[in-house]
Amino acid sequence: MRTIDWVDDAVVIIDQVALPHELRTLRITEVDELVGAIVRLAVRGAPALGGAGALGAVLALDQGEREGWDDDQVTAAIGRVRHARPTAVNLAWGVDRVAALRPSGRDAMLADALAVLDEDARGNRAMGERGADLLRELCGTDSPIRVHTHCNAGALACVEWGSALGVVRTLHERGHLGRVLADETRPLLQGARLTAWELEQMGADFRVVVDSAGPFLVSRGETDAVVVGADRIAANGDVANKIGTYSLALAAARAGIPFIVAAPESTIDPATPDGASITIEDRGSDEVLGTGESRTAPPDAVALNPAFDVTPADLVTAIVTEARTIRPAAGERPA
Amino acid sequence: MRTIDWVDDAVVIIDQVALPHELRTLRITEVDELVGAIVRLAVRGAPALGGAGALGAVLALDQGEREGWDDDQVTAAIGRVRHARPTAVNLAWGVDRVAALRPSGRDAMLADALAVLDEDARGNRAMGERGADLLRELCGTDSPIRVHTHCNAGALACVEWGSALGVVRTLHERGHLGRVLADETRPLLQGARLTAWELEQMGADFRVVVDSAGPFLVSRGETDAVVVGADRIAANGDVANKIGTYSLALAAARAGIPFIVAAPESTIDPATPDGASITIEDRGSDEVLGTGESRTAPPDAVALNPAFDVTPADLVTAIVTEARTIRPAAGERPA
Repeated sequence: MRTIDWVDDAVVIIDQVALPHELRTLRITEVDELVGAIVRLAVRGAPALGGAGALGAVLALDQGEREGWDDDQVTAAIGRVRHARPTAVNLAWGVDRVAALRPSGRDAMLADALAVLDEDARGNRAMGERGADLLRELCGTDSPIRVHTHCNAGALACVEWGSALGVVRTLHERGHLGRVLADETRPLLQGARLTAWELEQMGADFRVVVDSAGPFLVSRGETDAVVVGADRIAANGDVANKIGTYSLALAAARAGIPFIVAAPESTIDPATPDGASITIEDRGSDEVLGTGESRTAPPDAVALNPAFDVTPADLVTAIVTEARTIRPAAGERPA
Repeated sequence: MRTIDWVDDAVVIIDQVALPHELRTLRITEVDELVGAIVRLAVRGAPALGGAGALGAVLALDQGEREGWDDDQVTAAIGRVRHARPTAVNLAWGVDRVAALRPSGRDAMLADALAVLDEDARGNRAMGERGADLLRELCGTDSPIRVHTHCNAGALACVEWGSALGVVRTLHERGHLGRVLADETRPLLQGARLTAWELEQMGADFRVVVDSAGPFLVSRGETDAVVVGADRIAANGDVANKIGTYSLALAAARAGIPFIVAAPESTIDPATPDGASITIEDRGSDEVLGTGESRTAPPDAVALNPAFDVTPADLVTAIVTEARTIRPAAGERPA
């Protein structure tokens, strides 16, 4: 089942807010339902949002047809999807790509939206194959490979399969996957909630660990390779990813094991020369200082909450995309 | 106010379970109340438990006198204090030291128990002075020093002042403390709850961060030195401390800033040759996979939960005790 798909003239998504406790799907036929699902993170992850944007443009046209909207109303509805999460580049990209085909008609738009989904799925499969091959080469073993991962770069962030977790999935499919260690990923716990759920679904042997345990477990020989996703890759090979990635890279380098980044080509940003030029979003205190309704820290405490960190290129053994393998630690540049 | 003290023939402790939301003190005159306070972690931290054990022996004698216990009943009560937490070495040490004076009478026991408290307090002050002097020397600055710390090696773990946080306190008292970054310290959040409370009480400028943000913030120049406590120090200078310490040491080494361990001489264990020979306790899944009553991870997920990690000696700029400064990264051995 895909994280996001088009079934019987409706957008069907896995409701990620209900995970890991319940696998609930949402069948969406109205634009504002889709906007709501995006806003409350029922669908999340850059590639999945690209799909949501693409299908959202078709949804706007179909709803307009049913409800007798004029062109301006359809355009306004498409705009509401496009701006559901202002900083999500892929969302706007998916909307714009499909909306550009309005002159060609609804069927052309739908065909292109489905192509967006298929391209993402195919790209992830290719990334999985390339990453699994590379790990076999770097680890130099036919034994199962134990992987440490961080956050959720899985099928749930994409249309299907996943990027970093797609590599894990390919290893598992080949029978070459050892025990996986999944960081819980504070403050929002995407690892404990979503990655653990995906690993459980695929039948992998895995353990959840607190983020700060990862580097120590690497030092004790508990893992053969670290495999993570990326939010942005600079031209020199510096990698921005979920906070907590950098310390795993430091530990992997000291332990002499591979540190692999699996991410689509679209993540590589030639306009960003290096990691130092990446502005890191601070998401404020609330996510850190309490859980749910209850506050952990004293009343006047304030948090620093950087959402991402930057791993310098010299610690990155390889970047694996759907098209190629780049080795920054050996001096190769992605752009 | 001391974390644990003797006032008007009673043990008085700060109830750490109520922190940071309420500063509540417990006045304890019966042995089984003290045992209960130790079991539910109202008093915790190796040095504080040493004080609790020492005072507990006096409490048993006093309660026996009031209630007409015979010698065996007093001995049994002392034993209940000694075994309240079986793995806490300092608790048994404090009990045994004071109980050995029973032949000399109650007043001799009380004097020695108070000496246990005073020795700990004096030792921490000395450690704070030595640590603050060292930081000024290593940072080579008269400007305020920004410190990153992990877990709670504070007054709340001791009788007063603290070890790592005692160094911070001395810097603050001298007017030489910059902004402090305190790791929240998953899974039990001693940093967000206890260290944040102590920093708020002393009026320091501080921020709480998720544990995995620490290494990145070090890399971005957000701190001048890392200062942590220790649970055990091996003869070669390897340091076992709360999980999450190792990644800060890796980051400090790469950034070229000092990584300082502040801990009493009693933490140095000549019988442990190196970190590899330290068995790391795994505290099980429950602390990691949920918060309070609610479970975060999927139902069949299992955690690895190492309570401590080991930082190799070559990453430890200095160990500061009440008696001396040892520089493991420069080849000095503590034992």
